[in-house]
Amino acid sequence: MIQYVKQGGDFGRAFIQQLKERSANSGKKVDDAVAEIVETVRRDGDAAVRMYTERFDGSVPEQLVIEKADMQELIKACDPAFVAALERAAANIRDFHARQKQQSWLQTEANGVIMGQRVRGLARVGLYVPGGTAAYPSSVLMNAIPAKIAGVKELVMVTPPGKDGKPNPDILVAALVAGVDRVFLVGGAQAVAALAFGTESIPKVDKIVGPGNIFVATAKRQLYGTVDIDMIAGPSEILILADDTANPEFLAADLMSQAEHDPLASSILLTTSARIAEETIAAVYRQIEGLSRKDIINQSLDNFGAVMLCNDMEEAVEFANALAPEHLEVCAANPMEFIGKIDNAGSVFLGNWSPEPLGDYFAGPNHVLPTSGTARFFSPLSVDSFVKKSSFIYYTQDALMQAKEDIIKLAETEGLTAHANSIRVRDKQEAAN
Amino acid sequence: MIQYVKQGGDFGRAFIQQLKERSANSGKKVDDAVAEIVETVRRDGDAAVRMYTERFDGSVPEQLVIEKADMQELIKACDPAFVAALERAAANIRDFHARQKQQSWLQTEANGVIMGQRVRGLARVGLYVPGGTAAYPSSVLMNAIPAKIAGVKELVMVTPPGKDGKPNPDILVAALVAGVDRVFLVGGAQAVAALAFGTESIPKVDKIVGPGNIFVATAKRQLYGTVDIDMIAGPSEILILADDTANPEFLAADLMSQAEHDPLASSILLTTSARIAEETIAAVYRQIEGLSRKDIINQSLDNFGAVMLCNDMEEAVEFANALAPEHLEVCAANPMEFIGKIDNAGSVFLGNWSPEPLGDYFAGPNHVLPTSGTARFFSPLSVDSFVKKSSFIYYTQDALMQAKEDIIKLAETEGLTAHANSIRVRDKQEAAN
Repeated sequence: MIQYVKQGGDFGRAFIQQLKERSANSGKKVDDAVAEIVETVRRDGDAAVRMYTERFDGSVPEQLVIEKADMQELIKACDPAFVAALERAAANIRDFHARQKQQSWLQTEANGVIMGQRVRGLARVGLYVPGGTAAYPSSVLMNAIPAKIAGVKELVMVTPPGKDGKPNPDILVAALVAGVDRVFLVGGAQAVAALAFGTESIPKVDKIVGPGNIFVATAKRQLYGTVDIDMIAGPSEILILADDTANPEFLAADLMSQAEHDPLASSILLTTSARIAEETIAAVYRQIEGLSRKDIINQSLDNFGAVMLCNDMEEAVEFANALAPEHLEVCAANPMEFIGKIDNAGSVFLGNWSPEPLGDYFAGPNHVLPTSGTARFFSPLSVDSFVKKSSFIYYTQDALMQAKEDIIKLAETEGLTAHANSIRVRDKQEAAN
Repeated sequence: MIQYVKQGGDFGRAFIQQLKERSANSGKKVDDAVAEIVETVRRDGDAAVRMYTERFDGSVPEQLVIEKADMQELIKACDPAFVAALERAAANIRDFHARQKQQSWLQTEANGVIMGQRVRGLARVGLYVPGGTAAYPSSVLMNAIPAKIAGVKELVMVTPPGKDGKPNPDILVAALVAGVDRVFLVGGAQAVAALAFGTESIPKVDKIVGPGNIFVATAKRQLYGTVDIDMIAGPSEILILADDTANPEFLAADLMSQAEHDPLASSILLTTSARIAEETIAAVYRQIEGLSRKDIINQSLDNFGAVMLCNDMEEAVEFANALAPEHLEVCAANPMEFIGKIDNAGSVFLGNWSPEPLGDYFAGPNHVLPTSGTARFFSPLSVDSFVKKSSFIYYTQDALMQAKEDIIKLAETEGLTAHANSIRVRDKQEAAN
């Protein structure tokens, strides 16, 4: 069960440091197995995809692609209230992400010079969606909507077939709501490899996004460079900062909402109040009894759960920045005053009425966030994740002649005389005119 | 010497495809050597850094850091005309990159909801600068200036000591012009590992950028995730599109300016004019005799150089998009009309007076560009490369209560009942008030 760390200071600092060390490495056995799958799919295309699907998923669908008509039929099984909720969430996600869109721009100068930056959506993106209990319609929205806003021309989804050879209808309806263009029934490392290289039936994409098991993550890592990928997600975490105005029932519930994901998930409460700390632990013991994923929550809290008593909120903020959590809740009298103090966090939830699940499902900001301390340098998935930029330069003859001495001097200092020559031949041409 | 491909169409398409396959892989031997260096530096810190510096660079400087006073002394050796050119280039680079800076933003709603995105510079960045003949002051500017504009608090440079135990003064002066904060005399995989983990004297950074040899590139790849990195640069390329208004002397010079970098560099001319093709080849034979890096140029053109005659400019554009070159020159009567047609290129140089070296050194856009066809999905180095974003959500009690049914429905459909519980405990609290 959740650990109670009764002191901050140097002891707390060491505790936080130790938490940061946890990580999920794939190991050589997985690396080798994935490398073989990747190479076989590269060589044999669809035949390899079918072979691995048979081996890992038990059976192969007659055709890999799901036609629109079949999708319409399959989604009839969905709960209409669920679909309506999904559509309202999608509207919020669209609204937030539309504000991230960057425009191409240019600058002009009086001497005729034109320079600028083009920003365009990637041509084709692949979205991986896990099967089984890890098939989350909300993740389909969070990955697909920013891609479409970025201007991605074709968005292809891959997901393993269920035991009955069919896809999860809740995933399909999310794909339709989010604007996914085509769906293929294939999963695992073989799906990632197929998207990276293209096969007879599965198109080659420019970027692969979406969560997956260790085989999927390893395939993405191995293929990075052949294709772009999103962040490699590690075990995820919530960290809550609470002063004595927080509500222990809320804190307990929010810690467990993270813990239910995974035995490796980490749920940490940092508080300045011993009363809040103790009442939260009591509330965890009480609330967990009614939760269906009690066993996972228990394991997760055992492994990486903690309630820590800090000397003051400044210390709590210091520890939060050191951990750089994926999710950070601030349950304090004036939560807004903390925004400027938080250097490292994927998404920040302010106040008692902004629990993490609000962001996971509904508010609008992305729930694909940097995990395992990578919020130090990585950012949430966004419209920017689905664009490519390029620059352009147009110089006039006059403008180049004004710059020629500097360019030649810089090139020759670096010993790159053919670079200097490229300016000199133009100078000679001008002199000849 | 450069190959003449006299037909486009399917033959040309196959030729382009084959060019795309070239790549520089590190191989297992390098991987293992680098893994050992990384692990030793992680464990032993400065002692390991000194051991490897002794082994690979021949001697160890007494202290790794270069103090500001020593820098001022060392840069007295620099050519003042070079320093002045560097300062003018830096001004152009600053001007272009300042336009890339993104602001934090927020949205507010009538029901009290506040959401937004913070954009901040990374706290600390490490810049790798190679030694010897690959030490390019221009690359220092191109890496350091966007970092400082992004708001990076501390920018640390590492570079191997020269044979005399001293750094290259041209690199140092570029570091001063660009605003680098500290310089350490250490290179190779040991420098990358030191920046990723931190040692007694070298600080841990959030991101490592800058070019390096295969050991440096492999170390960056292995440490990706522990620290952010820039793109792994592959062999670079120029592709030129030319109609019959182009100048063969210019084309020849520009092809060779790329070829002089590296025997693996690729220089391709696609033209609709047999006259232009033939005169360019003749000009290459003529101009190469006067160039100091003739041998490298010859090897490079032999390996991956080509002049191809295309059926029309549409076909040339198609091939350019398939190759997705790092540098693309458009030497055509109306170069501007091509901007919208180019889907994949790192940087586009428009017209006869915008040669690649203008962009390499002076105009302002970044010269760190996606190589080896990765312009399909990667972007030039930019201010965006040195920021991290995070989102924040503030909901009021009323706003959460309006959303509660949807969140609970979505969470329960996904089987995540502890997520639903986080909303329910708040609903119960509201009912109790």
